[in-house]
Amino acid sequence: MLNKKIFLYENRPNVTLTTYILDSSPKNPAWDSRPGILICPGGAYLYCSQREAEPIAMAFAAMGYHAFVLNYSVYADEGGDMNPNREFVVKPERVHPTPVREVGLAMKYLTEHAAEWHLDAERIAVCGFSAGAHNAAMYGVYWNSPMVTDYLGGAYRPAAMILGYALTDFTYISRLIPKCDDQAKALFRAINIAFAGTAEPPEELLKEISPALQVNAQTPPTFLWATADDELVPIRNTLAMAQGLADHQIPFEVHIFERGHHGLALATQATAKRKSQILPSAGKWVPMAGEWLKQWMPLQVPEG
Amino acid sequence: MLNKKIFLYENRPNVTLTTYILDSSPKNPAWDSRPGILICPGGAYLYCSQREAEPIAMAFAAMGYHAFVLNYSVYADEGGDMNPNREFVVKPERVHPTPVREVGLAMKYLTEHAAEWHLDAERIAVCGFSAGAHNAAMYGVYWNSPMVTDYLGGAYRPAAMILGYALTDFTYISRLIPKCDDQAKALFRAINIAFAGTAEPPEELLKEISPALQVNAQTPPTFLWATADDELVPIRNTLAMAQGLADHQIPFEVHIFERGHHGLALATQATAKRKSQILPSAGKWVPMAGEWLKQWMPLQVPEG
Repeated sequence: MLNKKIFLYENRPNVTLTTYILDSSPKNPAWDSRPGILICPGGAYLYCSQREAEPIAMAFAAMGYHAFVLNYSVYADEGGDMNPNREFVVKPERVHPTPVREVGLAMKYLTEHAAEWHLDAERIAVCGFSAGAHNAAMYGVYWNSPMVTDYLGGAYRPAAMILGYALTDFTYISRLIPKCDDQAKALFRAINIAFAGTAEPPEELLKEISPALQVNAQTPPTFLWATADDELVPIRNTLAMAQGLADHQIPFEVHIFERGHHGLALATQATAKRKSQILPSAGKWVPMAGEWLKQWMPLQVPEG
Repeated sequence: MLNKKIFLYENRPNVTLTTYILDSSPKNPAWDSRPGILICPGGAYLYCSQREAEPIAMAFAAMGYHAFVLNYSVYADEGGDMNPNREFVVKPERVHPTPVREVGLAMKYLTEHAAEWHLDAERIAVCGFSAGAHNAAMYGVYWNSPMVTDYLGGAYRPAAMILGYALTDFTYISRLIPKCDDQAKALFRAINIAFAGTAEPPEELLKEISPALQVNAQTPPTFLWATADDELVPIRNTLAMAQGLADHQIPFEVHIFERGHHGLALATQATAKRKSQILPSAGKWVPMAGEWLKQWMPLQVPEG
């Protein structure tokens, strides 16, 4: 394995791409050029959750895929204060469209190192959870738009998307906030400042940062999963994304499990901080995503 | 992840312990001290198979376990000739009991680095495939015998064993050889020279190197899996090991799948060199082993 941390900027030590590149072997044709998966951890754009980083990489590496974890721009620096009730100031270099461009930076880096790493650059999926799923979905809908391509000097198409308990519709969240309890109000206000650069984003910006409303003919096939009773990100976000994909005839698969808190990650002991985060039913998303992914980017195993 | 190759001897570059140590986090109690798994790839004691090395480590890392791959002493050096039909000479420093002592060396190394690596040294399973399962099983039955403890200067108990299509009964293999085809004859002759140090081991040595006949009260709980129609290592090896465990009231679990060639590893695209090595039925051994392992060495996830 080549396990390496790459810094995407010279002066931003928290914005990193970590590689989990599996062994290649001239004796094994299926290992000569593998598909890959780029993982965006969640954390409300306030931090990057470790529970949705390396453990997810291990799950996909176990399926034979090269895995990569992107720590994109978030409000706090590593180990920083994550309490949404503190004072927030806008950090202009970290707000939208910076995070989605960083997914692009990572895709560009992967593409440029594809031969060296025995990576099939045409078959890289983006994957994310919660806010990380938002960022991955933003890339899925904007990968070929000037917002991204002008910055990168090129377009890097993701082959597929895998989105867990995704935040996809800021217009809905915005209408919801007045009805939320104080804790959720503080959190969404923090996300708005951290990600949108303002506590009350105007309608046009809310639409722009809602991937569910931006699905288009170039959006890749998508696998969505969530839990119906998610107490933080309403299931409407997953349903709206599915509707957007349906409206544009993009192939997609959705699994909504009846029960489960927000932030289940693998829903197994590997990611649980508490026993309530172990849920065998929701944990089925992993083998299901693996089966689905094989349709879009299987390893090239010879006949015989 | 801490991914590192450790050389177990100063002058034997092919005998290595490779670590896949997962991230720890003071914020996640379950990650503070994880159980681990030590993997012995197969390869007939002629080489160490990459298909049964890193991909297996990824499967267990995905379950939240620290994983380690041991490349123990085998006949060929890395990239060496693996054709069993060539001339073989005895390499005294590589024959039994060297390989089983190397499992012990690895266990000792892991134990000595347990605190640094956030590893629970009391809960390290040994795992192997084919000849690697033989080596793991040899350690399981000899870990507290002078053959191992005098060499190590201590005893390091494995918490569990996971054995895939294991070679466990050399006395049976020896009786079988006259009835084999020429290819199998050549292979078993090569194994005998490479591992036992003689083309025709005496009966006493055959018994000593048959873990199925050496199970004792100190042998750890064991998970066995194989395929009924294994064309290389007869299923009798798995059945004999199970009987040995039963005779000594050691807890064990056995899964024998009806179909599957020898050497399936994960039985998925992640380890297949050819499509015939992808078998969803046999591939169920991985989640089954994961469920079983949770009984003996679960991650310590707090209530709540």
